[in-house]
Amino acid sequence: MSRFLSEKYQKLSPYVPGEQPRDRGYIKLNTNESPFPPSEKAIRGAREAAERLMLYPDPEYKLLREAFAKDIGVKPSQVIPANGSDEILDMAFAAYCGDSPAVFPDITYGFYRVFANKRGAPFREIPLGGGFEVVPADYFAAEGTVFLANPNAPTGKLLSLKDIESVVAANTQNVVVIDEAYIDFGGESCVGLINEYENLLVTRTFSKSRSMAGARLGFGIACESLIQDLETLRRSTNPYNVNAMTAAAGICSIADREYFDSCRAEIIRARGEFTAELKNMGFSCTDSKANFVFAKHKSVGGGELYEKLRANGVLVRRFPGGRTEDHLRITIGTSETMRAVAGILKRITEETK
Amino acid sequence: MSRFLSEKYQKLSPYVPGEQPRDRGYIKLNTNESPFPPSEKAIRGAREAAERLMLYPDPEYKLLREAFAKDIGVKPSQVIPANGSDEILDMAFAAYCGDSPAVFPDITYGFYRVFANKRGAPFREIPLGGGFEVVPADYFAAEGTVFLANPNAPTGKLLSLKDIESVVAANTQNVVVIDEAYIDFGGESCVGLINEYENLLVTRTFSKSRSMAGARLGFGIACESLIQDLETLRRSTNPYNVNAMTAAAGICSIADREYFDSCRAEIIRARGEFTAELKNMGFSCTDSKANFVFAKHKSVGGGELYEKLRANGVLVRRFPGGRTEDHLRITIGTSETMRAVAGILKRITEETK
Repeated sequence: MSRFLSEKYQKLSPYVPGEQPRDRGYIKLNTNESPFPPSEKAIRGAREAAERLMLYPDPEYKLLREAFAKDIGVKPSQVIPANGSDEILDMAFAAYCGDSPAVFPDITYGFYRVFANKRGAPFREIPLGGGFEVVPADYFAAEGTVFLANPNAPTGKLLSLKDIESVVAANTQNVVVIDEAYIDFGGESCVGLINEYENLLVTRTFSKSRSMAGARLGFGIACESLIQDLETLRRSTNPYNVNAMTAAAGICSIADREYFDSCRAEIIRARGEFTAELKNMGFSCTDSKANFVFAKHKSVGGGELYEKLRANGVLVRRFPGGRTEDHLRITIGTSETMRAVAGILKRITEETK
Repeated sequence: MSRFLSEKYQKLSPYVPGEQPRDRGYIKLNTNESPFPPSEKAIRGAREAAERLMLYPDPEYKLLREAFAKDIGVKPSQVIPANGSDEILDMAFAAYCGDSPAVFPDITYGFYRVFANKRGAPFREIPLGGGFEVVPADYFAAEGTVFLANPNAPTGKLLSLKDIESVVAANTQNVVVIDEAYIDFGGESCVGLINEYENLLVTRTFSKSRSMAGARLGFGIACESLIQDLETLRRSTNPYNVNAMTAAAGICSIADREYFDSCRAEIIRARGEFTAELKNMGFSCTDSKANFVFAKHKSVGGGELYEKLRANGVLVRRFPGGRTEDHLRITIGTSETMRAVAGILKRITEETK
């Protein structure tokens, strides 16, 4: 830190993402990436765009907006593209928090707390219920901007559309942000509600279900007035926030519905098989509707499991401390990978008994 | 604007970039893009990375940092990559302005004012000299964070390394940001000074001289403590701020020194020829060391020239009002393009006499 840094950032503690080892020696199940490559069409779109990189992207991203809006059934004026959905979340903290607090679960995406701290916004963390569930009524009188990941991370637990609507409807004086990073793996999206509620902002990412984590593409979806707020910030920060290759890949990925559906169906199937195997070994698992499971063994501790998996070449994510101390968040890879990981876990847990 | 938007952004007026027409019918000389495609090596690097997009980029960008640092003769710990140099500038306004004002010329990159407004930072604009020159002594007692584009935009005028050092040396209590977006077209970089001055931050972009505007890649270069400030912000905003294709393309572009040198030599040559032609037609031009010229005709007004060029299929940039009212900023394309544009300008100015 330099002596010049503004006082407000001097105690800022950054988000720590899952490890990204540069050697390919690990089975990498720690950052919820897809085991499948992007759609061939998306790759081709990116490759073609690479040849015209001397030109700036369209700062309006007209074609990208149109394609995404059509795909999810809203108007192009109701969506905004970003350099990953984190950029939308960051803008939402800037636009809607500070004067009023941010409100989110005590166990959720760790970046919410970092965003709040960075913006100097007070925040309130609401404890999850006994089964790691978000209790909608706890957010009915939020008196602040609500951030809910649905499904939640790292638990994978899903709120129904009706539950989400109850939170949005109860907060007419606050914005409610629903982070749908993992919605494509078994949840029902709430984007249809943006036409009824002017306080609802939904975020989406292409990093998970569309296999484009390396491309950086996310969206905000909301009524036009909220989108205009975020547009003002986007155009005052980086009007070319999405690079041209990613914009092209995004459009082409959307056009390949069949591949998208087959990838997520495969993840959902592998998740079911892996969860059953975990339970047979003495793990308890939340009912995850995301591309990961959240699991705790009846006798082997989280730290020990994590280290032994690592020693066996398997990277997973752990959130030490508190109620998540003994849990692992394990990304769902291919069925084949998950059978191999189940085998390793079986050996570890039996050896440790 | 929604009723929820934080008061501090309610009057924010975004940056307006040059038009990006989606049809290719124009000779596009309005956003200082390169007329040359990126290095073949860079295109190949991006194309290969497109196949592995399901994985997040390395959030440390180790290989990219090493390649760029080596190229400019500093240490990897003295550079930080970004989603275009605008992202570094935005972080610099966040980190170093607000408590103290931002200080920059009255005629310069229009985004500085937008960044200051967005951060709620007061700013002071210092008038350029009579020949549109930055007067170094005007910044010796800045009492705020200094932002100087060198060469300046839209004038193209360059300060010598000695002049830049005089500003940095006189501001030991403030950070001085030198925006070197256009330095590769004839200027001497000040990056070597970062080892002597802990208050110097230099920004660079791959959008101009490296033909990668569509890829979005920029860097900050400074002593380690300033870089650590910016790293804290980067990792608290978007730890994967540069997409994987662009990171790969950047590394490969750096490796292709020969192509880089030939492109900028070609631009410098075309700039010289075009400037001579402009002068023959009755234009006065600043001595531009950037990939654009800043020119005013002795009798035809800026608005009229702009419109007539547009009607003839040539897009340039204009900054109406004040001392720049009658000037055009014309990006330098290929020699062939510039000869065609000179022909069109000749016809327009002769017809309008």
